[in-house]
Amino acid sequence: MKYVRPEIEALKGYVPGYQPRPVEEVIKLNTNENPYPPSPRVIEAIEVQARQGLERYPSPMADSFREQAGEVLGVQPDWILAGNGSDDILTICTRAFVGQGETIRSPYPSYILYRTLAEIQGARIDFARFRDDWSLGDDFATELAESKLRLGVIPNPNSPTGTFIEPEAIYELAQKMSCPLLIDEAYVDFASRSCVELVARDERIMVCRTLSKSYGLAGLRFGYIVAQPHMIAELAKVKDSYNCDALSIAGATAALADQDWLAENRAKILATRKRLVAAMTDLGFEQPESHANFTWNTHPDVSHRTIAEKLADAGIYVRYMDYDDYGDGLRISVGTDRQNELCISKIAEIIAAES
Amino acid sequence: MKYVRPEIEALKGYVPGYQPRPVEEVIKLNTNENPYPPSPRVIEAIEVQARQGLERYPSPMADSFREQAGEVLGVQPDWILAGNGSDDILTICTRAFVGQGETIRSPYPSYILYRTLAEIQGARIDFARFRDDWSLGDDFATELAESKLRLGVIPNPNSPTGTFIEPEAIYELAQKMSCPLLIDEAYVDFASRSCVELVARDERIMVCRTLSKSYGLAGLRFGYIVAQPHMIAELAKVKDSYNCDALSIAGATAALADQDWLAENRAKILATRKRLVAAMTDLGFEQPESHANFTWNTHPDVSHRTIAEKLADAGIYVRYMDYDDYGDGLRISVGTDRQNELCISKIAEIIAAES
Repeated sequence: MKYVRPEIEALKGYVPGYQPRPVEEVIKLNTNENPYPPSPRVIEAIEVQARQGLERYPSPMADSFREQAGEVLGVQPDWILAGNGSDDILTICTRAFVGQGETIRSPYPSYILYRTLAEIQGARIDFARFRDDWSLGDDFATELAESKLRLGVIPNPNSPTGTFIEPEAIYELAQKMSCPLLIDEAYVDFASRSCVELVARDERIMVCRTLSKSYGLAGLRFGYIVAQPHMIAELAKVKDSYNCDALSIAGATAALADQDWLAENRAKILATRKRLVAAMTDLGFEQPESHANFTWNTHPDVSHRTIAEKLADAGIYVRYMDYDDYGDGLRISVGTDRQNELCISKIAEIIAAES
Repeated sequence: MKYVRPEIEALKGYVPGYQPRPVEEVIKLNTNENPYPPSPRVIEAIEVQARQGLERYPSPMADSFREQAGEVLGVQPDWILAGNGSDDILTICTRAFVGQGETIRSPYPSYILYRTLAEIQGARIDFARFRDDWSLGDDFATELAESKLRLGVIPNPNSPTGTFIEPEAIYELAQKMSCPLLIDEAYVDFASRSCVELVARDERIMVCRTLSKSYGLAGLRFGYIVAQPHMIAELAKVKDSYNCDALSIAGATAALADQDWLAENRAKILATRKRLVAAMTDLGFEQPESHANFTWNTHPDVSHRTIAEKLADAGIYVRYMDYDDYGDGLRISVGTDRQNELCISKIAEIIAAES
């Protein structure tokens, strides 16, 4: 393939979790979607916007969303940049901060998309291992001799483990770094704390979020980043001019305005998570404490891959993940009680047959 | 700003046409939007999708759209990649084909976004001048001594001039090039011919389109590229995993399914364009023949900048553009007859006052 850049030719490409269709006929616990629909106000706002017409360009900076998000987060609108999903935000940050041959640091095992983003950019990814207690050591902040460290990214809560690093520890880590540190808070609404307050304390700390998980809006593609205004201004140069469409801006704004819906939804998911953890523990699985809407499960005796395959045969999808030089496991999304119960009882069957 | 890449720091950033709010209270002829609403079927499809729920991820490759577009264009679905506006497609192509220090070739004067895309990528843009008859010479295909030519981009019809290069001439040009040639057909539905049929004849030729202009869907952010399947496969590696949302996929699919709406809308706009051209000619403006939903107007005696400013004072927005080493002029979108009439009579007033 002589036309594309060598970095692209070499790329396998990021493979997102399998999206079986039609989703109504399977139990889908593999991409951490919300089992509950978004707030009815979101649908209403989308319908109103659709009927108002779509022939005009949307607000380039998603003004209404910035105002609403600023209110919820207690920051001014110019501390916020909206994106077409947090994927868009992660891409923008990579392009803004990391040049060819330079390095992104991320923890390990963690979200594998960061590697792809580095590779598309012709950059490197360098992993710092989590310690046994799922904290990060000073090696996360260490400069490299051979390539300039330009961006740190920490998903917090982490995927696939669901583990959480306290904001104080994140802040300390940032003080040891000479480059920006992006905290990917995709799952933070299922945790107890957030790093958003750190942004005002250090220009290097940035926080990104998505509406895909806690707001039940994976289909809408909406995410955002919180950073100091001079950082936002630079990121805005890299984004596409109209990166969010009029419908998603309207929907996302309505979603953030309905914090009651979020609280209710969150409570249901945390209750189901508790039951999932207990049941999987009973089946002999080990799990780090989850602060997200999924759990990371390893079993000492049974093949994780076999379980995932047999579940898929039965129309139940969980995420089998295998990290080189670390190990494999099953990441199971928190669905409805009923979905998780069906999944768990099938796993029990598989384990009984395999033992 | 020590954190961002030097290329980003140096970047002014692409400034899209001014988006006055609320748009209902002004006459907006500066960003080539469609003055007519999209097909009612689009709105219906969006409402159906919104009510079906948005908690699941959308189709990563926008499958329903690919099938519908394939049917309209007479190609298989795997010849199509959908994007979050054609901005997304242009960004993907730049990232896939053009490395740091390499070059994009585009005509001059033309769409200025290509320069920004090159600069974000740390690449160069090299311009080949249109000849007097708005065709392109062999210099468009010439290799450079100092930097590898990796991508050619030709908007056809061109912006801001509205001029059109026949597909035969494009094909001949491609034969002289060693890199891919992207034909940006944002405005092609207002012309008589297209380069889509060339894609099957040469793997280097790719065609991108947007639904923003002819389908009246600037607010929806939807574009696509037609290329040979092995090229699509490489481009897909670079895009964000879920780059189009469920609502825009549903709306775009419905838009392409309603070709009658497109034909009707097109006929109205071409009729208004004809009137606009005649009236501006009467006022002493010169215009190359437009194949788009806008015209490029230059006046031998009156300051274009003054006209644009005085129009804006009156709540009428056209696009003043000034190309270094070429000259300036007014790009006026084809709106409704009424909008264009108000614009023209105000211009007549301004000219009378200035002369």
